[in-house]
Amino acid sequence: MSKLPISTFENIVKIALNEDFGRAGDISAMACIPPKNTATWVMRARDEGVISGLQPALLALELIDKNARLEILLDDGERVKKGDIVAKVSGNARSLLMAERTMLNFIGRMSGIATLTAKFVSEIYGTNAKITDTRKTTPGLRALEKQAVRNGGGTNHRFGLDDAILIKDNHIAAAGGVEAALLAAKANVGHLVPIEIEVDSIEQMKIAMVHFPSVIMLDNFDTIRMAQAVKILRDFAGNRIIIEASGGVNLKTVREIAQTGVDVISVGALTHSAPNFDIGLDSE
Amino acid sequence: MSKLPISTFENIVKIALNEDFGRAGDISAMACIPPKNTATWVMRARDEGVISGLQPALLALELIDKNARLEILLDDGERVKKGDIVAKVSGNARSLLMAERTMLNFIGRMSGIATLTAKFVSEIYGTNAKITDTRKTTPGLRALEKQAVRNGGGTNHRFGLDDAILIKDNHIAAAGGVEAALLAAKANVGHLVPIEIEVDSIEQMKIAMVHFPSVIMLDNFDTIRMAQAVKILRDFAGNRIIIEASGGVNLKTVREIAQTGVDVISVGALTHSAPNFDIGLDSE
Amino acid sequence: MSKLPISTFENIVKIALNEDFGRAGDISAMACIPPKNTATWVMRARDEGVISGLQPALLALELIDKNARLEILLDDGERVKKGDIVAKVSGNARSLLMAERTMLNFIGRMSGIATLTAKFVSEIYGTNAKITDTRKTTPGLRALEKQAVRNGGGTNHRFGLDDAILIKDNHIAAAGGVEAALLAAKANVGHLVPIEIEVDSIEQMKIAMVHFPSVIMLDNFDTIRMAQAVKILRDFAGNRIIIEASGGVNLKTVREIAQTGVDVISVGALTHSAPNFDIGLDSE
Amino acid sequence: MSKLPISTFENIVKIALNEDFGRAGDISAMACIPPKNTATWVMRARDEGVISGLQPALLALELIDKNARLEILLDDGERVKKGDIVAKVSGNARSLLMAERTMLNFIGRMSGIATLTAKFVSEIYGTNAKITDTRKTTPGLRALEKQAVRNGGGTNHRFGLDDAILIKDNHIAAAGGVEAALLAAKANVGHLVPIEIEVDSIEQMKIAMVHFPSVIMLDNFDTIRMAQAVKILRDFAGNRIIIEASGGVNLKTVREIAQTGVDVISVGALTHSAPNFDIGLDSE
Amino acid sequence: MSKLPISTFENIVKIALNEDFGRAGDISAMACIPPKNTATWVMRARDEGVISGLQPALLALELIDKNARLEILLDDGERVKKGDIVAKVSGNARSLLMAERTMLNFIGRMSGIATLTAKFVSEIYGTNAKITDTRKTTPGLRALEKQAVRNGGGTNHRFGLDDAILIKDNHIAAAGGVEAALLAAKANVGHLVPIEIEVDSIEQMKIAMVHFPSVIMLDNFDTIRMAQAVKILRDFAGNRIIIEASGGVNLKTVREIAQTGVDVISVGALTHSAPNFDIGLDSE
Amino acid sequence: MSKLPISTFENIVKIALNEDFGRAGDISAMACIPPKNTATWVMRARDEGVISGLQPALLALELIDKNARLEILLDDGERVKKGDIVAKVSGNARSLLMAERTMLNFIGRMSGIATLTAKFVSEIYGTNAKITDTRKTTPGLRALEKQAVRNGGGTNHRFGLDDAILIKDNHIAAAGGVEAALLAAKANVGHLVPIEIEVDSIEQMKIAMVHFPSVIMLDNFDTIRMAQAVKILRDFAGNRIIIEASGGVNLKTVREIAQTGVDVISVGALTHSAPNFDIGLDSE
Repeated sequence: MSKLPISTFENIVKIALNEDFGRAGDISAMACIPPKNTATWVMRARDEGVISGLQPALLALELIDKNARLEILLDDGERVKKGDIVAKVSGNARSLLMAERTMLNFIGRMSGIATLTAKFVSEIYGTNAKITDTRKTTPGLRALEKQAVRNGGGTNHRFGLDDAILIKDNHIAAAGGVEAALLAAKANVGHLVPIEIEVDSIEQMKIAMVHFPSVIMLDNFDTIRMAQAVKILRDFAGNRIIIEASGGVNLKTVREIAQTGVDVISVGALTHSAPNFDIGLDSE
Repeated sequence: MSKLPISTFENIVKIALNEDFGRAGDISAMACIPPKNTATWVMRARDEGVISGLQPALLALELIDKNARLEILLDDGERVKKGDIVAKVSGNARSLLMAERTMLNFIGRMSGIATLTAKFVSEIYGTNAKITDTRKTTPGLRALEKQAVRNGGGTNHRFGLDDAILIKDNHIAAAGGVEAALLAAKANVGHLVPIEIEVDSIEQMKIAMVHFPSVIMLDNFDTIRMAQAVKILRDFAGNRIIIEASGGVNLKTVREIAQTGVDVISVGALTHSAPNFDIGLDSE
Repeated sequence: MSKLPISTFENIVKIALNEDFGRAGDISAMACIPPKNTATWVMRARDEGVISGLQPALLALELIDKNARLEILLDDGERVKKGDIVAKVSGNARSLLMAERTMLNFIGRMSGIATLTAKFVSEIYGTNAKITDTRKTTPGLRALEKQAVRNGGGTNHRFGLDDAILIKDNHIAAAGGVEAALLAAKANVGHLVPIEIEVDSIEQMKIAMVHFPSVIMLDNFDTIRMAQAVKILRDFAGNRIIIEASGGVNLKTVREIAQTGVDVISVGALTHSAPNFDIGLDSE
Repeated sequence: MSKLPISTFENIVKIALNEDFGRAGDISAMACIPPKNTATWVMRARDEGVISGLQPALLALELIDKNARLEILLDDGERVKKGDIVAKVSGNARSLLMAERTMLNFIGRMSGIATLTAKFVSEIYGTNAKITDTRKTTPGLRALEKQAVRNGGGTNHRFGLDDAILIKDNHIAAAGGVEAALLAAKANVGHLVPIEIEVDSIEQMKIAMVHFPSVIMLDNFDTIRMAQAVKILRDFAGNRIIIEASGGVNLKTVREIAQTGVDVISVGALTHSAPNFDIGLDSE
Repeated sequence: MSKLPISTFENIVKIALNEDFGRAGDISAMACIPPKNTATWVMRARDEGVISGLQPALLALELIDKNARLEILLDDGERVKKGDIVAKVSGNARSLLMAERTMLNFIGRMSGIATLTAKFVSEIYGTNAKITDTRKTTPGLRALEKQAVRNGGGTNHRFGLDDAILIKDNHIAAAGGVEAALLAAKANVGHLVPIEIEVDSIEQMKIAMVHFPSVIMLDNFDTIRMAQAVKILRDFAGNRIIIEASGGVNLKTVREIAQTGVDVISVGALTHSAPNFDIGLDSE
Repeated sequence: MSKLPISTFENIVKIALNEDFGRAGDISAMACIPPKNTATWVMRARDEGVISGLQPALLALELIDKNARLEILLDDGERVKKGDIVAKVSGNARSLLMAERTMLNFIGRMSGIATLTAKFVSEIYGTNAKITDTRKTTPGLRALEKQAVRNGGGTNHRFGLDDAILIKDNHIAAAGGVEAALLAAKANVGHLVPIEIEVDSIEQMKIAMVHFPSVIMLDNFDTIRMAQAVKILRDFAGNRIIIEASGGVNLKTVREIAQTGVDVISVGALTHSAPNFDIGLDSE
C-alpha cells in the first residue's frame, strides 16, 4: 500500500502533539519516571479490523524522540484479529508515554475508517461496484482519512473543490438547466478536469448523458429506478460514463444498490461516523 | 454557553478550508454560478440532538467572504428536533457553496459529540455524578471537542499532559509504588497542579488516599467493588477527594456506575466514537 | 474572469511583504514623508498586453493599510495598450510607497505570463487547439501563475502530482511497458482521476489507445508524424481521447503544430520564461 | 561561493513541495513504480550558463527522502557548457520522481538569473563598474535570487525597504527638496544605515553631493550627461560617494554606460525577466 | 532537572534565528572566515548564578548545523561561579559564529531569571514557603521562563488563563460578591481545575474560606495582617487551603513575608525584571 | 514617532496570546463575568519613564475583539509621570480581561527599555554622542525592542547579521589580520553594506583606518586611550569614519565616555537588562 508524502500530514501531527503537550509537557512522566528508564511496549489490537494511521503515529514518535523506535509488524491496509500485535515501540520511557495518546488517537481513528470501509467492501463482494468516500471528512485530516479509505479497500472521490467539477441542484438552477450547466463546466476547465453531474430523475439523466460527462451520480434513487437508469445509460454509452450511486447507503442497503450495476457507491459514513478502532499499548 | 477564543480553533478552520480549496478553489461554482448571484439558505437539523460547532462554522464563512452572514437561531448547547432551523446563511451564492461543506463538517462532528454527551448525561439524571471526557480526541480538534462535551452537558477532564498529573500503572511501577509516585508528583509541581491517581484495587486506593490526591480514579472496577471503594473513601475523606470511575462505560452501564456515588465518570467514546449529527443546507 | 480564493495566494503575499519590510519597514518613507500625507497614483501600463495579478496586489495593499484603496479600471484578463491606466491607488502616502514594489512585482510577473499566453493563443487563431501550461511554475506561485495563463486565454494542465496520472518514460520502463503502466494506473486511482500517457512513437501510441486513457501526449513528434498520429487516433476513438502536443513549442512553431489537429498544446515557457510586463506607478 | 543559511529559503521550498504534492502526492509514481526501485540520474545542462539554485534543490530532495543523495559536480557559481553534468541524484526512484520538478524549477530559475547576470558582467569586462540587482524580484524568492545574482558575478543592491534609505522623487517632493530629504534621512536612522539618493538632473546632483550621501543614483541620464555628472562628482568627492547608473540598461547599452566611469549599474531585468536555464534529469 | 519538550520552544528559537539572519545570513563570517575552518570555544560564566536556557541554545546550534556539537558541562539548574565553563561548542567556525548571539541571548536571559529566583529562594531558607512566578512573562517565552524559575528552585503559578481559575476584584464585582464568584467558578469548570481567589481583606477571606477554594491569595497584606490571616485560615482549614502572598515582594521583604507562614509567595520580578546573566563565548 | 509595520510584530503578538489562552481561554472571566458586561479602564503609569509598546498592545486587543477600543493619550516615545493615564480601554469586559496581561507585558517591557535608554541619553546631554543598542535583544522581540530604543531617544546598531559587516577578533584572526579582513569584507559585499571593525588597540586602529571602514569600534578602551584614539582618527579622517565606543558602559561611566568625542556608544543593557516599567489597568 503506497505511503503518503509526509507533507500531507506533518502539520496535523505537530498540531496534535502541541495540543497535548501544552506549555509544560508530560508533567506526570517527568515527575514519576526516571529520565533514563527505557521500555518496550506492544501496540495490540483489541478488536478485529483493518489497520491505518501508522504513518502519522510513527511521525509523532520521531518528532518527540528520534531515538525511539516503532517496529511495524502489521502495516496499513492489513487485517488484524483481536489480540494481534500491530507494532512494537521501544526507547526512552518518558518519550513513549508522551507519544502514546497521540499515536493511538491517529491509529484508532484511521483504523476505524479502514475497518468500516472494509465492511462495506466485503458486503458487495462479487459485484462490479466500488465503495468510495465523500468530502465529509474531519477538518484537517482529509489526506489521512482518504488514505484510510484506500487502506480499507475503497477508492476516493474528489479530494477537494478544485480537482473535479461536481454539478448539483444549485448549480443546475443557477446555470439555467442541466445542459447549460454542463456546457458551462466544459467551457471553464482544462482538459484534465473530470465533470460529474448529480441527477435526481431519469429525465435529468437523459439530458445529461448526451453531453458525456465523466460521471453521472444517481442521487437518492430507489433501486428499481436505479436499475432502470443504469440500463438506459449502458445502452447509450456502454462504460464510457461512470455511474455513481449516492444517498441512503448503509451496510444493509449497499449490496442491493451494488447489484443494480452501478460503478461506484459513495458513503459519507466512512469518514464521518466510523467508530474508533480499539487499540492499546501494553507490556509485551 | 461561553464562547471559545478564536485562537483556539482558527488554525484548524484555515487548514480545513485550504484542504477543500486546494490550488484552484470551487471550480464548479465558478463555472456554473454567475458571480453576483446571492442566496439565502437554512441550516436544518435532520435529527434530534444538541448543537455545537457554530463558532468554527461562522469563522469559515467569514474567512471566505466577510460580507456573508450567518444568523444563528439555535446556539451551541441548545437542543434541536428534526427539522429545526439552526441558522440562516445568506450572501453571495459562490461564497456560500464554498463554505457549505466545511461548515457542515464542523457542525456535524461537534454536534455529534454534544448529542452523545447529552445522552450520557440524561442517562444518569438524578444522580450526583458528572460525565467527563478524555484525551481520546481527534488530532487538531481538542479545544472544539472539549467545548462540544460542555455543550452537551458534560465536563472536561485534563486538556493535555501538562495541566494535571495523572499517575497510571506505568508511573507507579517506575516510581516504586503508589506512595513513592504520589510523593514524587507533589515534589515536582506547582501549587496549582491537581494530582490524580488511577488505582486498580482497593488496596492501592487505601495507600493513595492518605496522601490526599485531588482525584482517585477507580479503573475498571465492577460496580460492587466500586460502591465499596466509594464508601471507604467517603468515610475517610468526605468530599475532599474526588472519585472518578473509568473503564467499561457505555449507555447501558453508566447509570449503575453513577449510582455507586462516584463524582465523575469518564467516557472515551464521547469524542472518539460519536456518530455524525445529520444537518444540511436547504432552501428556505 | 473568476477570482481565486484568497487562501491560494495569501501566504505568498505575506511572505513577499515580509521580505521587503524586513525588521524595520520602509525607513525611507518614514524619514521623508510626513505621516499624514495622502496621495493618489495611477498604475499605468508601459507596454501592451494582458493584465493579471490584481488580486495579490490588492491583498498586499489591504494588509498594509486597510484604509488604502485600489480602484480597478482594467481587470485581470483584460487587454491593455501602452499608456492605459489599469488602476488607481489612493490613501496614506507612506502606505502606498510600502506597497508599491510588492504590488508591481506581482502584476508585472503575472501580466507577463498572461501576455505571453495571449500571444500563443493568438498565433493559433482559427484552429481547434488550446494552449495549456505545465508544472514548470515559479516555486510558491503556482496557483497565481495558472490563473495568469487562464487570464491570457490558455487552459491549465495538472495542478500538481496528485490530480491526474501522467505516465512518462520512467513509469513505462518501471511498470514493464505501456500496457502494464496503464493497467497499474487504472487499478490504483479513484473514478475521478484522469490518466494521461506520454508516448514517443506511433507504436507506443497504438498500444496505449486501446486502453482509452483520457489523454495521449505526443512528445517531441515532428508535425508530419504528429498529423499521422492524430489521424490514427481520430479514426480509432473520435474525440474520446484528448490529444496533447508537447516539446519544441514556440511562437514560430505553434501554428503548424495546431494545424495537425491536436486538442491541446503545452508550453513550459508560459510560466518559466515570460518576460516581465512593464507597469509603473505614476502621478495622475 | 558562500552558502545561504537554510532559514532564508526553507519556507519557500516547503511551499513548493506542498503545492506540487497536494493532498495525495505523486500518484503516478505510486501506481507505476515498485516501492523499492532505485535509480541514479544525472542533472544535465541543456544550454551554457552559470549554475545557481542547488541549495534549495538539495533541500527539496532531503525533505522528501533523507536517504536520497545529490552529488554536486558543478556548484553554484560555476560556468557550464551544454551537456555538462551538474549533479547526480540517486536513491529510491519514487522519491527522485517526486523531487524532480521542484528541483529543476529552482535550478532553472536561479541559473537563468545567474546566467543573465554573467552576460551583463562579461559585457562590461575591463571597466570598473559592477552589475547590481534591484528589488524587482519574484515574490518569496528574494534571498535566492540575490544569491543567484552573486553567483553570476553581480553584486546586490538593497535587500528590502529597511536596510538602506533610498530617496526618490516622491520623497524629495514630500520632504520639501533634495536637501531637506537628505537631512531628514540622516536625522532618522542609525549610524550603520547607508543613504542613497536618486537624482534626475545635474542640478539635483550638485545639491545632494555636498551632504555626502553614500550613493548618488543617476536615473535615466544619457551617457553624455552621465559622463559629465561622474566628472563633477569625482572632482568634488573622489571615491567617497558611490555613483550608480539606473534606467534603460540592457545588454546593448550597458558597456557604454560602464565606460562613463560609474561604480555600479542596476538592472531590473536580472531578476524580473531572465529566461529559464534549460536543465533536465536524464539517465546516466 | 526535567527537560521541556522541544515543541514548547522550537518556534521561538526559529524566530530568533530568522530575525538575526535576515535575508542574507552572517555576511561577516562569510566574507572573513574560510568555509572549512573549525573552532572549539567555551561558554564561560562571567558572574555567579544558576544556569538555564541550554535547551533552546542547543536547538539553535543544531538548526544551523547538525554537525556542530554542544557539550554541556553544567546543566540547567546548576550553580556556577564566575569563570566556570558551562559548555563547549565545536564545529565549523562559521556555524558557531552564526549561532553565538542567539545561544547567548537565550542563556543570558533564562539564567538571569534562574539566578534571581535562586536569590529569592535562598532568602527564605528555613521557612516553609515557596517562591512562585506570575504570568508577567516575556511574550513568546513563557514555557522557557517558567522552566527557568524551576531551574532556580522556584515553582510555577498558572501557565495561562485556561489552567486555573483566578478570581480577582473585577470578577468578584461582576459576579456579585465573593460567594457568588466562587459558586460560579465551581459550576463552570471540570473537576481538575483549581480555583484560587484573591482577597484584599480578612473579611473577604472569611467569606471565601468556607467554600474551600484550592488557594486563597492575600493581596497586598502587610505582614501583621498576613500573619493574622494565616492563623485564621489554618485554624479553619489546616493545610487544606493553600495560602499565597502577593504584592510588594522584593529581596528585602520576602523573608518577613515567608515567616508569616504562607505557603507560596508570587513574585512578578522573577520574569519581568531579572537582569541578564553575563556569559560569553571564549577561546579555550 | 514612526510606526512599525504590523508584519514585524504580528507573529509575536499572536504567539503571546496563544500561550496565555491555551486550549480553553479565560475560564475565570467566562465563569464570573456576564457575557454582555462592558467596562472602561485606564492604563496608568505607576512610575515615570518613556512609553513604548502601544502598537503590539493595540494589536493584541484587536485580535481578541475588533469592537474593543484602545484610545491612546500618550503615545510611544512620550514621557510620563507616575499616575499619568497612558490610554483608555473600553469594550466587552471579558475581552478586556483576556487582553490585559498580554497588553501590559508588551508595554511594561518595551517602556522599560525606552525608559532606560532615555536615562542614558539624558546622561550624555550636551555631548555629540548617541546611544545605540546591540543584538543582545530578547528572542522574537528584536524589531519591537529596537523601536523601544528609538522611542527612548537612542539609535539602532545592526538589526541582524546580514545588514552590515562587523569584523571582530575571530574574523581578524581567521582572515589573517586587520587589513586582510577589511579587504575580504569589501570584496564580498554590495555597495550598500557598511563595514565596521572592532579594534582593541591603537595599533590595530591605525591599520584599519587607512582602509576607511564606515565605522571603527573601540572595544574596551579606557577613556584616556579612547580620547587618544579619537584624536588620531579625527586628524586622519575628519568625520568620514564613525567612531563607536563599546564595553563597560553604564550610567556612571557613559558621560565620561561620551566626552572623549566618540560618535556612538553601544549599550547591551538597554535591551538585555532593562527592568520592567510598572503600568496597570485601573478603574477610571
